[in-house]
Amino acid sequence: MKKFVLLLSAIFISLSVHAQQALWGGQQITSPQINKDNTVTFRYVAPKAHKITITGDFLPEVPKKTSYGTFDVPGSVEMKEGKNGIWEYTTTPLNPELYSYSFNVDGLSVKDPNNVYLLRDVASVSNIFIIGGGRADLYKVKDVPHGTVSERWYDSPSLGKARRMTIYTPAGYEKSKNRYPVLYLLHGVGGDEQAWPTLGRATQIMDNLIAEGKARPMIVVIPNGNPAQQAAPGEGPKGMYKPTMNLPHTMDGTYIMSFPDIVKFIDANYRTIRKKSGRAIAGLSMGGFHSLYISMNFPDTFDYVGLFSAAIIQDSTKTSEAFENFDGKIRTFFAGKPELYFIAIGNRDFLYKANKEFRKKLDDNGFKYEYYESGQGHIWRNWRIYLTKFVPELFK
Amino acid sequence: MKKFVLLLSAIFISLSVHAQQALWGGQQITSPQINKDNTVTFRYVAPKAHKITITGDFLPEVPKKTSYGTFDVPGSVEMKEGKNGIWEYTTTPLNPELYSYSFNVDGLSVKDPNNVYLLRDVASVSNIFIIGGGRADLYKVKDVPHGTVSERWYDSPSLGKARRMTIYTPAGYEKSKNRYPVLYLLHGVGGDEQAWPTLGRATQIMDNLIAEGKARPMIVVIPNGNPAQQAAPGEGPKGMYKPTMNLPHTMDGTYIMSFPDIVKFIDANYRTIRKKSGRAIAGLSMGGFHSLYISMNFPDTFDYVGLFSAAIIQDSTKTSEAFENFDGKIRTFFAGKPELYFIAIGNRDFLYKANKEFRKKLDDNGFKYEYYESGQGHIWRNWRIYLTKFVPELFK
Repeated sequence: MKKFVLLLSAIFISLSVHAQQALWGGQQITSPQINKDNTVTFRYVAPKAHKITITGDFLPEVPKKTSYGTFDVPGSVEMKEGKNGIWEYTTTPLNPELYSYSFNVDGLSVKDPNNVYLLRDVASVSNIFIIGGGRADLYKVKDVPHGTVSERWYDSPSLGKARRMTIYTPAGYEKSKNRYPVLYLLHGVGGDEQAWPTLGRATQIMDNLIAEGKARPMIVVIPNGNPAQQAAPGEGPKGMYKPTMNLPHTMDGTYIMSFPDIVKFIDANYRTIRKKSGRAIAGLSMGGFHSLYISMNFPDTFDYVGLFSAAIIQDSTKTSEAFENFDGKIRTFFAGKPELYFIAIGNRDFLYKANKEFRKKLDDNGFKYEYYESGQGHIWRNWRIYLTKFVPELFK
Repeated sequence: MKKFVLLLSAIFISLSVHAQQALWGGQQITSPQINKDNTVTFRYVAPKAHKITITGDFLPEVPKKTSYGTFDVPGSVEMKEGKNGIWEYTTTPLNPELYSYSFNVDGLSVKDPNNVYLLRDVASVSNIFIIGGGRADLYKVKDVPHGTVSERWYDSPSLGKARRMTIYTPAGYEKSKNRYPVLYLLHGVGGDEQAWPTLGRATQIMDNLIAEGKARPMIVVIPNGNPAQQAAPGEGPKGMYKPTMNLPHTMDGTYIMSFPDIVKFIDANYRTIRKKSGRAIAGLSMGGFHSLYISMNFPDTFDYVGLFSAAIIQDSTKTSEAFENFDGKIRTFFAGKPELYFIAIGNRDFLYKANKEFRKKLDDNGFKYEYYESGQGHIWRNWRIYLTKFVPELFK
């Protein structure tokens, strides 16, 4: 029978090769190839192409003008054609990081058919790879105890619908009888309950920080911050539509005022520490805006707040009770002496000025906060870094 | 502040459009567009292209010769160039189904940049869409109660490593105090714990069958059948390597004899019905081979067995105790009067003959089984169908 099994395997493999090559465009080459010196070689088979470039966030950024201002975007470089129509480009040695890239073949942007690792960011999909070492080791799946990651539906009475969230419970949670603190981790505009676990590598960061003893074991709750959605695109009853950033009610206070639904659900269904000292909330961009307003509208709920490149808005308005009496609410919040108020932003972020003004307001009032300033702008690379800085300070 | 929020949204959206278009190749058109009559229009922007074809499993299959025989593969058709370099193709009305496709631009296989819904099958990635109606409605996320889907790690003493599995608990499980039956659902060669939840739409099928009252609420356990892997490619400590079908120990008995590790873990950690009448096992291709041997090597464990396009091997061998005394073991298994022995295969499957011979053996011995024969061959379309046929018969 051994022979028969081998034959069967051969048939399966033959089918596989067929499927990859003839049907869906796989190529029997290696790309990306991470070399020993942390240079990376990319390859693409295109015997008939005239010009192929690679665009990636490992290349020097270039400024790009838009009607809203100038933003830094990943650079591009030409690949060179070698034998058998295989185009190649090898980088200089890269620093540890999770990188994204795509190819452009004679004007057409294409994915790397030899790299199945893809991340979706709103409506765009790009190939990724990780250069390990240093901080980027936190982004890798390592041989450490792993938490459980669940996609779970809950009822939101305030929003009148069933909704989905991602819940990370740390290794050992199921066997333990202890209560655990909870970090509520919020995404930005265009994101959803899948953004932090995929683009943010939040699962890997939590596993690794906890395994290294640098973070306390905690539950991480990653809800969907778009009140119009029940779940991420393709994961809810709306089916497989083209994702967009242009969703209603994301920043009008609706989500902020509905947030207790989520905390109640988590406290009712998990062994949580059901008080302020056992809860943190943090978010990026729009999620920072949400974290700011949720924490001060429900001032006895969170002892730890993280604003990552937050879309900070200091004005008050009457569109939602969430925004009424900003000054009074934030005073009340800080009067409760939160354990940590953490603000992080890149020095080239388009929200840098708004954050600086907000920090001045905090300074003028004597409200204590911790500040971390990184390079670069409004990008996931920064948000992963901020998470690795924020989490070790929680629940100490 | 409302104005400021609107401006911020505009900036985010501008960034998004930028990211999609300039960087990762998104295009501001709609593709695929599912029309009211269930025709589908595909579009691709390529002003400089000479010839674009679309390959998809909604087109008539064509035979393809390989050294292992002739297999049916999805057909291709040319797209036509219209205004502004937008190439188009509209299908005839399609039957309800989940379909896969890719474009080929002047010899290069490319993904649809306007469709973020992608499925990985071993080392190939393709775009998908669903035509609803009939059976295919079971593949959609509908507005029904949803189960929880968890990625959870467990220790396998037999294999000496921590491993990952996917676990579906039905809606209401967490709030209930009842015990639940368990379906162990196994993947094929090149698959892993993500195959059934993605390619197989198992989560949606379970949610919908249970909501319709056609299936009993049950736990579904989807382990990884590759003893050399701890988890799916990219999800374990081996990092992001190119997936392959050519893995060691998949069909040598190792996994079969280690299977009690999984059952013990599930029974210890979930409110299960801890006896034969509360357990089913089913799998596709290699997973059918595993289900066959696991069920008869542990004859008091499963009352329901499903062999989907199973890689059936009747010979006995000494390579593993799993394969010893085939005739005796299968006689013992059937002497236990299993509630259901379900065999399904496509009439064009390359394993059709092996299954026919196996059924004859069962017939000759008077062992009862249920048989379902579909059209087509060794493809996910059939395995989704078999799951929808099998699950309603369980635990009645």
